[in-house]
Order: sequence, then C-alpha cells, then structure tokens
Amino acid sequence: MSAPVRALPDEIAVVNVGLPMFAEAVRAQGGTVTHVDWRPPAAGDPAAVRALTRLYADERIDAANTEVLRRLDTGVPFLTAVRRADEVVPGVGGRMLLHCGPSIAWEQVCDPLRRSMRAATVAEGWAADTAEADRLLAAGDVRLEPANHHDTVVPMASAIGPSAPVLVVETAPDDGGGPVRAFAPVNQGPGEVPWFGRDTDAAIARLRLLRDVVGPALAAVLARSGPLDVLAVAAQGIAMGDDLHMRTQAATNLLVRSWVGHVAALPDDVRGPFADFLAGNHLFFLTPAMAAAKSLTLWATRVPGSTIVTTMARNGTTFGIRLPGSDRWYTTEAPPVGEALYYSGHSPDDAARDIGDSAVLELVGMGGPAAANSPAVAAFLGGSMADAAAATDGFRRICAGTSSRFTLPAAGFTGTPVGVDLRRVVATGVTPKVTTGILAAATGEGQVGAGVATAPLACFTDALLALAQG
Amino acid sequence: MSAPVRALPDEIAVVNVGLPMFAEAVRAQGGTVTHVDWRPPAAGDPAAVRALTRLYADERIDAANTEVLRRLDTGVPFLTAVRRADEVVPGVGGRMLLHCGPSIAWEQVCDPLRRSMRAATVAEGWAADTAEADRLLAAGDVRLEPANHHDTVVPMASAIGPSAPVLVVETAPDDGGGPVRAFAPVNQGPGEVPWFGRDTDAAIARLRLLRDVVGPALAAVLARSGPLDVLAVAAQGIAMGDDLHMRTQAATNLLVRSWVGHVAALPDDVRGPFADFLAGNHLFFLTPAMAAAKSLTLWATRVPGSTIVTTMARNGTTFGIRLPGSDRWYTTEAPPVGEALYYSGHSPDDAARDIGDSAVLELVGMGGPAAANSPAVAAFLGGSMADAAAATDGFRRICAGTSSRFTLPAAGFTGTPVGVDLRRVVATGVTPKVTTGILAAATGEGQVGAGVATAPLACFTDALLALAQG
Repeated sequence: MSAPVRALPDEIAVVNVGLPMFAEAVRAQGGTVTHVDWRPPAAGDPAAVRALTRLYADERIDAANTEVLRRLDTGVPFLTAVRRADEVVPGVGGRMLLHCGPSIAWEQVCDPLRRSMRAATVAEGWAADTAEADRLLAAGDVRLEPANHHDTVVPMASAIGPSAPVLVVETAPDDGGGPVRAFAPVNQGPGEVPWFGRDTDAAIARLRLLRDVVGPALAAVLARSGPLDVLAVAAQGIAMGDDLHMRTQAATNLLVRSWVGHVAALPDDVRGPFADFLAGNHLFFLTPAMAAAKSLTLWATRVPGSTIVTTMARNGTTFGIRLPGSDRWYTTEAPPVGEALYYSGHSPDDAARDIGDSAVLELVGMGGPAAANSPAVAAFLGGSMADAAAATDGFRRICAGTSSRFTLPAAGFTGTPVGVDLRRVVATGVTPKVTTGILAAATGEGQVGAGVATAPLACFTDALLALAQG
Repeated sequence: MSAPVRALPDEIAVVNVGLPMFAEAVRAQGGTVTHVDWRPPAAGDPAAVRALTRLYADERIDAANTEVLRRLDTGVPFLTAVRRADEVVPGVGGRMLLHCGPSIAWEQVCDPLRRSMRAATVAEGWAADTAEADRLLAAGDVRLEPANHHDTVVPMASAIGPSAPVLVVETAPDDGGGPVRAFAPVNQGPGEVPWFGRDTDAAIARLRLLRDVVGPALAAVLARSGPLDVLAVAAQGIAMGDDLHMRTQAATNLLVRSWVGHVAALPDDVRGPFADFLAGNHLFFLTPAMAAAKSLTLWATRVPGSTIVTTMARNGTTFGIRLPGSDRWYTTEAPPVGEALYYSGHSPDDAARDIGDSAVLELVGMGGPAAANSPAVAAFLGGSMADAAAATDGFRRICAGTSSRFTLPAAGFTGTPVGVDLRRVVATGVTPKVTTGILAAATGEGQVGAGVATAPLACFTDALLALAQG
C-alpha cells in the first residue's frame, strides 16, 4: 500500500534559528516550531569575532590545547610531604604573606582578607596584636605576594606566612621535564578562622595550632602512610556527591578512615588535638585537591600557545586569569556570589565579593564541572539535580575535553568537563560557574553563606584579544 | 476558526490492557497503541485472590499497617553500648550459637555457615580445633538458635557465641511501652573472616580480636562519644551513594571521622589494633544499621493484625519471613543470588545460596529500596542508574509507605519505600530484591562475588493464606 502523492504537505514544521520572536509568531498561529537558541559568536563584537576567527584558524593552538588537556587529565599528583612554607615554597622568606588572587596593594585589599593578613602577621610574631599588625601592613612593612606567583594556591581569604605548614604535592611529568611541585596550606577548618576573614584571638590561635600541632602531625602521618594519590581519593569523593569545592565531605571522610591507624600511632602530645582537628574538619580535603589542581595546571602552563586557562583566582577585589606560557594576569572586578544561600540574618547586602584561589579546581574538572552529581551543590542552584546538571553542562560548552578520572553517576557516568578554552568562553559568552563560600563584607563575622559565582566575561575577552594580537 | 465536524475520527488510538499480543497486532497494522502491563492479582490463583479480597476489605489491617509504618519510619534507634552477648542478649548462655536465618538442624546447615559455626566454637574455647568443633556440632553438643529469636540479627553466614561483643541499639517508643532493644555483632570486616564462611586460623583469630580488642575499644569510644543516632548517619550515607547493605562506605567513613578524636584517646594497648581494624573495614556500618532496623521492626511487631513483614532472613538453606504479633516463620528454599558479579575465577556454579539476616534492612527503607541513588548497586543491575532506579521502583509497588528520613537525590529527593506489605507482594507477584554478598558454596574460599537476590514468592503466599484463615 503506497501513500498518495500530494503537491503540498498537510503540515509544515518550522525550525527557527536565532531571535525567538519568529518562533513565537509561528506558535501563535498554531504551527509546530523548533527553536534553536543561536546567537552570533561573542555577541557579534567585531574585534572579538576577528580574534576568534584568527585563533580558531591556528592549528598550532589546537595541538597545544590537546597537550594541555592531556596534562590536566592524566597527570597524577601525589601529596608527598607537609613542611613549613619557608622550607619549601620558592621565594618565600622574611616578612612576606602569600595571599589569594592577583597582585594587590594594601589599600585595595577587602576587609576579610585584611583581617586574615592581620591574623597571620600576629601568628608569625611580627606584631603583638591586630592593631599593631594593621599598622605594619598599612606601612608596607609586610610584603604581600600572590600565592600563585609562588606555585601555591590558598582558599577563600587566606594569607599565609613563612611558618605556615603547606602540603607539598608533586606531579611527575612524562615529558622529560622536572617534577612539578605545587603547594597549598592545610585547611583551617570551619568556624572562627582567618581564611573566613576573622582576626579574633581564636582565629590567631588556629594558625598556631596548625603550625605547632597539625603540620607536624600530618608530616608524621604522611611519612608513615607514604605518598597519597590525591585525585584517586577526589574521584571517589565526586562519585559520592562531593563537587570537591563547596563540598569535600566524602573525600575527607575517606581519607580520615584510611589514615586512622596512622593517627593512632602519633605521639601523645599531638595525637589528641590533631584527631579532634580532623574530626571537626569536613573541609580538610579542599586544599589537597587545590594543590593537586595547581600542580596539574603548572605542568600544563609549560606548553606555550594554548588558549586553555591555567590560572583563575580572586582576591575579593579583582578576578584574574592567566594562560599557559605567560605570567600575565588579565583582571577585572571580582563578581558577587550570585546564586547563594545565606545563614540566618545575612543577605547579599553584607556579603563580600568572590574570593580565593580555589577556582583552580574548576580548571581541572572539579567544583562546578562536577556539580551534576552533587546534591549539596544542587541546593544552591534551585534544588533539583537537573539544576546541578545544568551547571555541569555550562562547563561542557566551554571546555575542551572530558575527564577520564572524574565520572558522574547522575550524568550517566560521563566524565566531568576539563580545560576551560578561552575561545569557547568568548564565543558563547558562557563563563565558569564557581561553587564557593561567602564571607561577611565588613563585619568580621566570617562565613555568612555559600553559593555559585559566575566568572566575569571581561578578563576572558581581554585575554583573547591580547592573544590574537600577540 | 472552528474545526469541521466529522462522523469518524481520522485516527484511532488504542489502549491495550493485559496480554501484549493485542497491542502488537494493532502496532503491526500501523496503529498507535498504549500498552498497560496489567495482570490479574496473584496470577489469578483463586485461593490467593480470595485471601487478598478478604485482607484488603479489613479496615483493621489498614489501621494496623498505618501504625506499623509509623513505627518503622519515625522510631529513632540509638547505639548505646557494646557488650558481651551473654551479658545483654536475652536467653544467651552456655554452649549456644546464634545463627542467621530461620531455625535449622546441623544436618541442613550449608557449608559456609558450618565453617562459621566451627570457627565460633573454637573461638569460644569449646574445641581445640575445627575438627573437634565439627564433632561437637554434629553431636548436638552446641545449641543452635536463630539470632532473630533473641532480638538479634547477624549478617551473611554469621554464627556468634556468648562471648562475642554485640552492639546494643535501643529505640524509645512513644506508645508507653518499654524500650526496644536489639543486637547485632560487630562487623568482622572483609577478607578471611567467619561471616564469609571461613574457618581458617586467621578467621578464628579475627573473632578473638573482636572479643579482646575491638569490643572493649568500641565500648570505650561509645562511653566517651555518647549514644549514636544510627539512622541519622545512615541517611547521610544513602545521600552519598550507600544503599547501606551492599555498600556502607560513606556511612562508615562519616562515623570514623566523627570518632577519630575518641579513637585517639583510647589506651595504648588497644588503640593501634582497633584503629587498624577501622581503617580496613569499609563494611563497619552494616551491623549498626541492621541492629537499628531490627529495633524498629521489633517495635513494629508489637502491633497485631498487620500485613507488613517484620522479619526477613535466610540461613543459606531456607528463606523465611514473619509478621507482626506472631513468632511463626513462613519458609521456603533460599534462592540463588541472581543478578551478580563474581570475582575472577568464580561463577554461579560455585556460589552458595542467599544467606544472612541483613534483609531486615530492606524492611525499613535501606538496601534495595535505596538502590536508586547507589552507583555501586547499579553496577550489579545492568550498570546504569536507571537500572538501580528500577530496583527501588519495584519496592514502591510492594511497600505501604515512603521514608521521611532516607531520601534519594537521584530520584528527585523522594523517600525510599518502607514497609513491605504482604498483600501487595502476593497481588503483584513482585518480591523484595535484596542487595547482598555471595559466598563460596563448598570450598571455604569466602566471598566470591556480590549481587541482588530476589526473594521467593512462596513464603509470602503461605503467610497470606494463613493470615486470611486466622
């Protein structure tokens, strides 16, 4: 039985590309219409379109990106030791503080980071109290250096002095280059702590506890356990609902269970306080994950000519990115944390801007890219797992590849997106969404909420234009 | 614009209920058909249909079920102590072993449970070696009692003697009745252990370690930490991908982190071995969860006239269930573990049948009902999260209610199904799917795989018929 031949079909299906108003007009007349949400690249900005055209035509960039992606995805960072910063971090010594984000002068430093710097200045013994610390800092008697300039990443409003214990994370490259070492402080934990912008006596005491008890205890645990494959633990954490940025509970717990025998073997003087510190710190795994991410991006940054972002950091005043093969920062004003939940009595009105080096996680497949499997992140993005999946999908639009180690059960066991490509960011106008905490803007109350910050487009566009000219 | 009136529609949509061949016939002719997979209740068995008709018409049953469900869902079991079984478990003393599943004579005991009984007999000091233990057991010189007859549940092929340490879990009823105490052994951990059907020297040594080190250490930890809200931890574990039966990793890790400060405070002689035991035991939380489930079902079983199953247990030879208000077992042959993954070199040919009291978990919303959020369970059911969701949905068809404490992020944060209603099981022919380990049938090699056992329908039908007659 063959169908009768007709001159015109009974029904016409319309595919509309671009402005939605045409689709709406067809729908209003009862027609069937499929709308494709197409927009011109870079919102049609001629300079950006020219730059994109040039950068997309350059095959050397694709080759460089492939190698950068390979390094970000396949490097295996090991936590090998815990040492004082001035013993291991290149260029650290004297009266120097390493802080989050791009370079900044004291006058521009936001309130929570100022408090953190004061707390570190007192803990280092350079000042007797926070008032004296403030005078030293204002007088320029303490050198302020971006942690990122010293192969180090620090979370939220962290500022660390030379005596602070740091995690030493190493990736052994397979390209004949020397080992890549990156550093991050031991996570200070929740509560009354300097990385949340507090400078109380308790906050200063926490820094001393880290230096005198937690650092030496961690060093002893690591000496007994041997090097830790950081991202093997992180991958399990992600499968268990961590994004490894806003939530690090599963990875932390996994690590603590694997370490409990080593904790039990510690000397009497540090065992109890160190164990209590671990028991109360569900955020412990944040900084091992950050140091591992930094070690991968440091290896990747040895590849010249790539458009994949290898630094993304904020100091609460400016937001900055850097590209492989260059130390140049592209900066713009730090954004507020937009999609947020606040602790009772707090609101966007008393919230500091996006802050910390932890956005390095988003560059290697953790944080926002892992949102799709994280109920905790979903809570900040509308509440449903579909909302969380949308955040991951946003990264899929701007990333060059997919992780082979971080998989998302809730997204059909697909890998997380890895390798934020500047070209894709500018072409789509989609920027990374970073899962993060929120600090009090000016009251010194510490954390007041958590949410998701959307990176500002301007610094990506600046970097793209500079790259196309260079 | 109004549509023209027609005598007959252009298209006919068919809804087919029951046998699929009619639907296929319509589809073969190019028609649109929606097939409803309806089957007659109880596969049309007249006696079962009569029993169902009677039991569904009885409003007292619905009232009893509502109360049973309330108890299973809202009771709050606390782990309060760890003691020797003969100090706390009612009726335990002398040469007695508590074993999994319904009552059984030595002649019918399967190989893995025999080995476990021999190991316990030696560990108790009743025999010098397993050969002597075998003679004692065969001669009836050791009394064999179902753990369930003593308010106790034991996992897999467990057999515990009077000196074994047990977890004491209590639920305080809000109905004026006395506190409900239930018991479970400390989980022996993975490897060469009696609950996996091993009777080697190492397996026997593990029982002694539990008695001499782990039990006293746990008692000290609990005395220092205070009572533990077991299902609060379990609920977090489920949100992190545990089903709390086949996988208990997240809940175990959470508990170990919360306990690490108490572990550090233990005396020198037990601290190290106890910590090593915890570090190596990702299955630790299985038995606290089982004891909590048993305490809830014990409270529920004080309600007469309900059709909600309150015991479900297997000894590797028989599978049995019990109902509230009665000690009567309804038993049938234990099933094989059908949907399974085997360790290398093993297959269904050398696998023991379904065994253990852990199926009590499936009665209160853990295990199979929590499959939908567990990537680990999905691996055994086809690999996708949709396969895991189907297992949870199977429980939705046969359960009377939904958990208010166990929620599944991957299923839109819905609660897990709770309260297996005998009537629904028989009406639908759908029986509980139990996530479980698999033991070697006869070689004493221990665990050879894991999978999902489908409960046999026969004992549910027997219970239904008996209830309708009573």
